[in-house]
Amino acid sequence: MNPVLFIREKREGLPHRREDLEAFLLGYLKEEVPDYQVSAWLMAVYFRGLSPEETQWLTKVMARSGRTLDLSHLPHPVDKHSSGGVGDKTTLVVGPILAASGCTFAKMSGRGLAHTGGTIDKLESVPGWRGEMTEGEFLERAQRVGLVIAAQSADLAPLDGKLYALRDVTATVESLPLIASSIMSKKLAAGARSIVLDVKVGRGAFMKTLEEARLLARTMVAIGQGAGRRVRAVLTSMEAPLGRAVGNALEVREAIAALRGEGPKDLVEVALRLAEEALRLEGLDPGLARKALEGGAALEKFRAFLEAQGGNPRVVEDAALLPLAEAEPFLAEEAGVVQEVDALEVGLAVLALGGGRRKKGEAIDHGVGVELLKKPGDRAERGEPLALVYHRGRGLEEALSRLRRAFRLGEEASPMPLVLEVL
Amino acid sequence: MNPVLFIREKREGLPHRREDLEAFLLGYLKEEVPDYQVSAWLMAVYFRGLSPEETQWLTKVMARSGRTLDLSHLPHPVDKHSSGGVGDKTTLVVGPILAASGCTFAKMSGRGLAHTGGTIDKLESVPGWRGEMTEGEFLERAQRVGLVIAAQSADLAPLDGKLYALRDVTATVESLPLIASSIMSKKLAAGARSIVLDVKVGRGAFMKTLEEARLLARTMVAIGQGAGRRVRAVLTSMEAPLGRAVGNALEVREAIAALRGEGPKDLVEVALRLAEEALRLEGLDPGLARKALEGGAALEKFRAFLEAQGGNPRVVEDAALLPLAEAEPFLAEEAGVVQEVDALEVGLAVLALGGGRRKKGEAIDHGVGVELLKKPGDRAERGEPLALVYHRGRGLEEALSRLRRAFRLGEEASPMPLVLEVL
Repeated sequence: MNPVLFIREKREGLPHRREDLEAFLLGYLKEEVPDYQVSAWLMAVYFRGLSPEETQWLTKVMARSGRTLDLSHLPHPVDKHSSGGVGDKTTLVVGPILAASGCTFAKMSGRGLAHTGGTIDKLESVPGWRGEMTEGEFLERAQRVGLVIAAQSADLAPLDGKLYALRDVTATVESLPLIASSIMSKKLAAGARSIVLDVKVGRGAFMKTLEEARLLARTMVAIGQGAGRRVRAVLTSMEAPLGRAVGNALEVREAIAALRGEGPKDLVEVALRLAEEALRLEGLDPGLARKALEGGAALEKFRAFLEAQGGNPRVVEDAALLPLAEAEPFLAEEAGVVQEVDALEVGLAVLALGGGRRKKGEAIDHGVGVELLKKPGDRAERGEPLALVYHRGRGLEEALSRLRRAFRLGEEASPMPLVLEVL
Repeated sequence: MNPVLFIREKREGLPHRREDLEAFLLGYLKEEVPDYQVSAWLMAVYFRGLSPEETQWLTKVMARSGRTLDLSHLPHPVDKHSSGGVGDKTTLVVGPILAASGCTFAKMSGRGLAHTGGTIDKLESVPGWRGEMTEGEFLERAQRVGLVIAAQSADLAPLDGKLYALRDVTATVESLPLIASSIMSKKLAAGARSIVLDVKVGRGAFMKTLEEARLLARTMVAIGQGAGRRVRAVLTSMEAPLGRAVGNALEVREAIAALRGEGPKDLVEVALRLAEEALRLEGLDPGLARKALEGGAALEKFRAFLEAQGGNPRVVEDAALLPLAEAEPFLAEEAGVVQEVDALEVGLAVLALGGGRRKKGEAIDHGVGVELLKKPGDRAERGEPLALVYHRGRGLEEALSRLRRAFRLGEEASPMPLVLEVL
């Protein structure tokens, strides 16, 4: 494999041979192929794409570039991925439901970046809870509790981490096959047999249109199936935030409410649908999901899960144990029916309050956030609160101005479906 | 200037701002912008191109990135560039003609790579001749002799050198605006007022089609004029090698023959045309070129030039002083009229004999080469020599097999024009 000829091949839109692609990528991992050749190739991929075979090969090389987990000895090992949204605390609801339905939900999660939150950040608002653990602890908790969520370690698909860092600084992130293979490489390495993908569509998501989302979903499903996994993708709307809570501790509180049967309708709908699809993939009765939720078994799993990872399980009964900031209302300046709540603006509002990070490694404030009191379809009078803003002074003005832009009130609202498609 | 946003701008086909382009490129020169960002940008440029303004700005930044020469105090400073061909010794004829016509021909030249030769390599076959010199020596020779050819130093347009080295290893060489700005940055830095460009077209050239060559020529003329220079481009055919000699010492011998009035018709035609265009640009009588050649003044200039740069001027009378290898004939296997002599194959034959370099820095053998005894339109009988192969054993088989592929004999030949267009 001659790296220059390899790059030229992609530049010209010619197919790569599997052994060349592997040699180029593993050469990069071993620092034998320099980053300036890889970034030129990535830009050529941006323009020329990757064939389904190339996408498959790339994903496998990345998945196998570090530690891989074997969960096959555990009952019904399932995993879930969301392409990232605003207020998306679905994992905190889906995981307990599936664990309570006889599955092993053993997942590696990331931290939030920009306007989207990360599951690890959310859980860290529970006093004492830790996502860092050894592989032994991970497997032990998976077996004993049936539910474990670990902070993704650097030795899981390290080639993906290295490539992603390079894409981030060379304007080559926005390539569909690269996005799909990055996500799937970590799922393959994490070892679950069944994988449900929640692909978000809309202004608060990375995929702005249904077409893009469909293509991403199809690519990820094909990669997973090509690697022998059972995969289903659910396309869900991310025009407005999911649920009412946006911000780390607020979202944990809302997830607990959902597990108590008191959750917002949209969150419960998406969580149940994802859980049902995972159960179907494993050949189990999808009806188990609702039973686990409504019977309280899911909430019990969540409590056991928090405790197993060092968290204070009493937050399940007493939300006051979560570190919430002081709230002040955000009032409607006119009367009307809420037509839109722009998820991106709300996400950016929480980022401004300090609830997210603009750069990797930044500290975040778990207690700040926005709680939407009105969502699309709700009527508000002039002066009535549309939302509560949990803040500590910092970034309040920006957050309020973003909320003003986020809410659109009018005569009437046309409700939009939440689950758009299942692939 | 944020490098990631800058790269993304080009990726999306959006125009750059001049200050951003300069900051990005000068940042690279100062090693503040890393090579992996530059190579991603270069690949985006490969796909999106550069606007005329961007090409202009890039060229100027490169031209000013190192030493620049001022030749404005010298009479009629002219320069010449060829886009590279096989058997192209035109500079060795044009330079003396122009110097003998009252111009200052002060030129920086490169070395050969792959199947094309370089002027410095050719001149180094003259015993004692050296292309390395100080700026002071360069200017002194330009003034005293009117003709000086120096090996291009690393401090002429160093940003071009750095970018070219990166393009070479990232498959981003073949971009028309990058090629044009690379060439013109060195011409602008070298300080001549008038520049004639010999753009080669055909199988032995980098530009394979007239369309490509025209676009390259137009881009270079626009860059030069935009920088206040007088520029003309002559498009000439490079289907067959220029002249009969291919190989360093052989080409010097042929150039001397041309300066004596005994040169091959095609070489003389191209050399005179280029010289005439240069004289026109300087407002001088183009008829001076033929007078300088036919009156012997050009040959005298060449002798003085060799001597000024340490070369043995007696090679002008005694070609046996050049280091020529032993020759053996390459015979026609059938009778016919030569229809084609593929310049690329002949160039590669000489490369195989050791007369060129596959990689930068490789040593070359000045004495090997190919002398074409038959060119398109000539008739050959079976067993008659088509060429002489000057060799030292090395690479002979490959060279002969390439020559067999190079010659195409048939019933009759349709002569092709040599000078295709003047822009």
